[in-house]
Amino acid sequence: MTAAAAPVTLSDKLKLIADHWHPRIIARVDEHYVKLVKVKGEFVWHAHADQDEMFLVLEGNIVIRLRDGDVSLSPGDLFVVPKGTEHCPFAENEASLLVLARSDTDQTGGVASVLRAEDQEWI
Amino acid sequence: MTAAAAPVTLSDKLKLIADHWHPRIIARVDEHYVKLVKVKGEFVWHAHADQDEMFLVLEGNIVIRLRDGDVSLSPGDLFVVPKGTEHCPFAENEASLLVLARSDTDQTGGVASVLRAEDQEWI
Repeated sequence: MTAAAAPVTLSDKLKLIADHWHPRIIARVDEHYVKLVKVKGEFVWHAHADQDEMFLVLEGNIVIRLRDGDVSLSPGDLFVVPKGTEHCPFAENEASLLVLARSDTDQTGGVASVLRAEDQEWI
Repeated sequence: MTAAAAPVTLSDKLKLIADHWHPRIIARVDEHYVKLVKVKGEFVWHAHADQDEMFLVLEGNIVIRLRDGDVSLSPGDLFVVPKGTEHCPFAENEASLLVLARSDTDQTGGVASVLRAEDQEWI
């Protein structure tokens, strides 16, 4: 088995993350990144003009606010924000998410925010 | 909230699947499908020439056999089979997987097999 053939244990990777709204890359599938992120509080309203974005809740609960209503997600719930759709993730308490989006997706869709992560790093 | 904005609860969708090696589509992310599949026994050796394929184990244990070794996966383990890599999934007992691959990915990479699903249907 080559080094590239190592499986990723999500719970192990989550232990490496201590901050919020700072996604870490754990895998690449074609031109998409699979990322893990811990979130707490409210993010910023934004949209990704040309990219869908998938959220899978691993721990905790989140709400993805959309302009026409909220989507509440618990562990094991999956939701895709369609391209061009304004959304604002919110978590009353800390939650852990798996996120899938194309590697060129800007976290805030170009919206300035102190919550915007400076980099996209692998763990 | 529009109908398109409904979350997908993985455990609910898994209850709808009774057969093995027959993936069901639960979401689309850009040109990729997110699928659920139950597996048991050995699949067929194959490769996808131009598409990566991601496996995330939800229930049970699987082995992804590669030509240079086995990758053993338990619930919460994720693995990407790189494009062009021969692989053969195996599960001694039934396991449930989330699979991500481009929508034009042939399940067996063109290899004839009685295990090959006839269709790609949404649930």
